[in-house]
Amino acid sequence: MNLLLLGEDEIDSTGAARLTGRRHTHAREVLRVQSGQTLRVGVRGGRLGSATVVEQTAEGLQLQVTLDHPPPPRARIDLVLAIPRPKALKRVIPAIASLGVDRVVLVNATRVEKSYFDSKVLAKAFLDELVDLGLEQAMDTVAPTIEVRERFKPFVEDELASWTDAKVRLVPHPTAAQALRPTTERVVLAIGPDGGWIPYEVDLLAANGFTPVTIGPRVLRVEVAVPALVGAVRG
Amino acid sequence: MNLLLLGEDEIDSTGAARLTGRRHTHAREVLRVQSGQTLRVGVRGGRLGSATVVEQTAEGLQLQVTLDHPPPPRARIDLVLAIPRPKALKRVIPAIASLGVDRVVLVNATRVEKSYFDSKVLAKAFLDELVDLGLEQAMDTVAPTIEVRERFKPFVEDELASWTDAKVRLVPHPTAAQALRPTTERVVLAIGPDGGWIPYEVDLLAANGFTPVTIGPRVLRVEVAVPALVGAVRG
Repeated sequence: MNLLLLGEDEIDSTGAARLTGRRHTHAREVLRVQSGQTLRVGVRGGRLGSATVVEQTAEGLQLQVTLDHPPPPRARIDLVLAIPRPKALKRVIPAIASLGVDRVVLVNATRVEKSYFDSKVLAKAFLDELVDLGLEQAMDTVAPTIEVRERFKPFVEDELASWTDAKVRLVPHPTAAQALRPTTERVVLAIGPDGGWIPYEVDLLAANGFTPVTIGPRVLRVEVAVPALVGAVRG
Repeated sequence: MNLLLLGEDEIDSTGAARLTGRRHTHAREVLRVQSGQTLRVGVRGGRLGSATVVEQTAEGLQLQVTLDHPPPPRARIDLVLAIPRPKALKRVIPAIASLGVDRVVLVNATRVEKSYFDSKVLAKAFLDELVDLGLEQAMDTVAPTIEVRERFKPFVEDELASWTDAKVRLVPHPTAAQALRPTTERVVLAIGPDGGWIPYEVDLLAANGFTPVTIGPRVLRVEVAVPALVGAVRG
């Protein structure tokens, strides 16, 4: 963890903060913090800076916080992601948060196994923790929004229409005719499940403004495909 | 596994092949193959095609193979990679193989923990298996070469000089002044450990033709950074 994330309500008007729970355990056992030491901190949704450890006890860490710079720029990318198997989801959510993606909609698709919906990884508290891992890694304070949609068609036809800021819509597919080209525009990527979107799903996405593009014929795991696509879009 | 990898010596002149071991177990238990079914196959270092299951017994799978297309194009990227912690190495090697990287040199660096050298993941047989996972995923037959170098300086000063085909040399770093730009040239990326290269290492790389570049201020895990950088280079 490269950053300690604090809630706005955890810091008082004098800059004093108290760290408990997982973050305290990590600071004590992994970072082995000592009184007087300086840590990088950030306020959820807000600015970053440093904190001096004033006191270190079994109950918690007393910090004095100074916030002096904004979080890193956003990737300006949104993802429509067919729900991956739970093991892959556990890896890709921290990656997504660390890359600065703004919106993630985890959607059902024909090739998404129904059992995935019962996975504990889809629980809000679990997803929040995975997001925090990514933010702490990338030294960011701004979490992506994550939503789950059990019905693909109404999501694509009704909800996506309201994403008026996202004009560049791409559905990456290994065998697409058109190569993905970097752009400075905001981009929505619709990333299919293992085995890909079925033709009906690609057609529905295409009818709603998504262009099939490719970064090459290689079939990549979702946790590899997402960073590779984000890298390629931002080029 | 999207592809069954066969050794050239496993296929006779009539196209008959016999699958045993891990690949047979996987074909039987995960893919649940049946006689008459068709599987995608590839010959290590060679062409791809399909195989019909002639017979399925407890001992093995008898296949009839037809090879009809070449492996996917290479990424034309080489990596000098500071040895990651074993857990990350286990994830990044399949990713690297699936992305079509040609050469990987796992090097020591100041911020590489000495214990990593004792990891079983660095054993050739273990690395070979991780590479196979990546090739099977991406439907490729061409493995990257992977080498381990315990001494950073002689590797950079002496060996890298012989990589005459790799003129574009980049050392990605979150705070570099220059943005990484896509190129069609072959590229060598020198990716540092958790915590980064130390200034001495960056200077040594710079003295040997590496330009510091950035894809943004976010500090990414190696298994996220590698696909993001490959995506950004190939843009």
